[in-house]
Amino acid sequence: MQRSSLVTVTDPTGRAAVPFHTADASAPQLSVFDSAVTRGDGVFETVAIFDGRVSGLDAHLGRFARSAALLDLPAPSPETWRSACAAALDAMEPVPEATLRLVLTRGTGDGVPSAWVVAAASADHTIARTEGVRVSLLNRGIPRESPADARWLLAGAKTLSYAVNAAAQREAARRGADDAIFVSSDGYVLEGPTSSVVYRVGNRFGTPETGATLAGTTQFAVFAWARRQGFETGTDLITPDQLRGVDAAWLVSSGRLAAPIREIDGQAHPVDTTVTPAVNAWLRRGDGPE
Amino acid sequence: MQRSSLVTVTDPTGRAAVPFHTADASAPQLSVFDSAVTRGDGVFETVAIFDGRVSGLDAHLGRFARSAALLDLPAPSPETWRSACAAALDAMEPVPEATLRLVLTRGTGDGVPSAWVVAAASADHTIARTEGVRVSLLNRGIPRESPADARWLLAGAKTLSYAVNAAAQREAARRGADDAIFVSSDGYVLEGPTSSVVYRVGNRFGTPETGATLAGTTQFAVFAWARRQGFETGTDLITPDQLRGVDAAWLVSSGRLAAPIREIDGQAHPVDTTVTPAVNAWLRRGDGPE
Repeated sequence: MQRSSLVTVTDPTGRAAVPFHTADASAPQLSVFDSAVTRGDGVFETVAIFDGRVSGLDAHLGRFARSAALLDLPAPSPETWRSACAAALDAMEPVPEATLRLVLTRGTGDGVPSAWVVAAASADHTIARTEGVRVSLLNRGIPRESPADARWLLAGAKTLSYAVNAAAQREAARRGADDAIFVSSDGYVLEGPTSSVVYRVGNRFGTPETGATLAGTTQFAVFAWARRQGFETGTDLITPDQLRGVDAAWLVSSGRLAAPIREIDGQAHPVDTTVTPAVNAWLRRGDGPE
Repeated sequence: MQRSSLVTVTDPTGRAAVPFHTADASAPQLSVFDSAVTRGDGVFETVAIFDGRVSGLDAHLGRFARSAALLDLPAPSPETWRSACAAALDAMEPVPEATLRLVLTRGTGDGVPSAWVVAAASADHTIARTEGVRVSLLNRGIPRESPADARWLLAGAKTLSYAVNAAAQREAARRGADDAIFVSSDGYVLEGPTSSVVYRVGNRFGTPETGATLAGTTQFAVFAWARRQGFETGTDLITPDQLRGVDAAWLVSSGRLAAPIREIDGQAHPVDTTVTPAVNAWLRRGDGPE
């Protein structure tokens, strides 16, 4: 058993009798002609595994299908991908925390998509979840709304073209921070490069909702928890100044879960030591809505 | 001999005694953990080969190095990459037209970059070069200038994150066109998804120059030709209406060379049947400035 595993999905649309098989995650598996490699032309999801349980898979498969449609990729079969995820998990040594990465690309140009699920043990996120993260606010260079009907801009699709996201995280590190939060060119908080922003003001949880923000599966789960606890929830347009004034804020994502924001651009930010462990315990149990 | 070939560059910075070796382009070569695959996090150049001669390699290696620096990747050694290009060309069956693709990525997370050169026979571009291409103007969703000092937006870097470029070309095809031209959110012509825009008005050649436009190596070569022919050259901010009014316009790129624009959003556009074959013959000979 390995610390990582790979399942190659030979028929992501699920029509074949045997639509996937296990492969060697440590061996080269991809052609240099694959569209993932040549153009970042594909879609993905990152799904967390806690104590062997897959967390929120239905929500991830739903977004995966929406991303695929936006990129004119064939519709992934939920049954096939659910089975492929289970096979990837089975092929890997049990660890407390792991992630599955589901990838669907346009392939090598012969019309056949490439698809796979890779499972790997997670990094230790304990410090980020308990002590919190320092963030830098970085201009994303785009307005909060895409031009109407400009579907080629792929707003709302989780694509493999993440070079700017990766560069923003390097810039944040250069500034002594742990992560970044993107701000639109017209001055509104968007999201982290690989996370959603959630905040609490009094009895209400909020999250930015703009045309340039990806619908976050973990944000959705946090809101479900909040409503069960009697909090109100809603979406907003929020400026950096307003974010600095909230009672508490988090970067939330599938693998790291809710990381309280303890510093924004070098300025201390309050950490909610009651909500943070409670919501993380709940997300980790994964008994919320999928 | 093959219609394609691959050279793996084991030391892109050129310090190793044997910095590259040939590999099998038709076999899987890349890890699913490579940053090219997971995040489109890498840089590339496409270099044309005509009758066995590499065209404009110095200009491409210069931009390759600038792209690498913008992404905090190690500086590629020009000598190593020039030799790797020659080795890729040697390993391939001679064809009239081929392209070399030079790729440098962040690797699989252990700090060692991945790098390779792949050579492949080109598609037949005769019709595009002679009869011309129909283009659709598509909003790029970003203003013509990036915010000052926002280096994480990677303006000017030729990265592997080309999902929007690929989506724009699909949208153009959906509209019955052959290619796209991006327009900034504030209304200026930028570039094609994989080409530069060049136009002629009377005795002057122009090209858009904005913070959201990649410096085109072929555009540079076309301007060098134009000046030798006695034309003036310059850069402009140009609107779609102004583009519709020029005497002739081309999409220029390393492999396809100068493709005259014969239709913009369904409206006929004049093709310059004197300049087009002359500039393409010159570009194909590759005896201009590198």
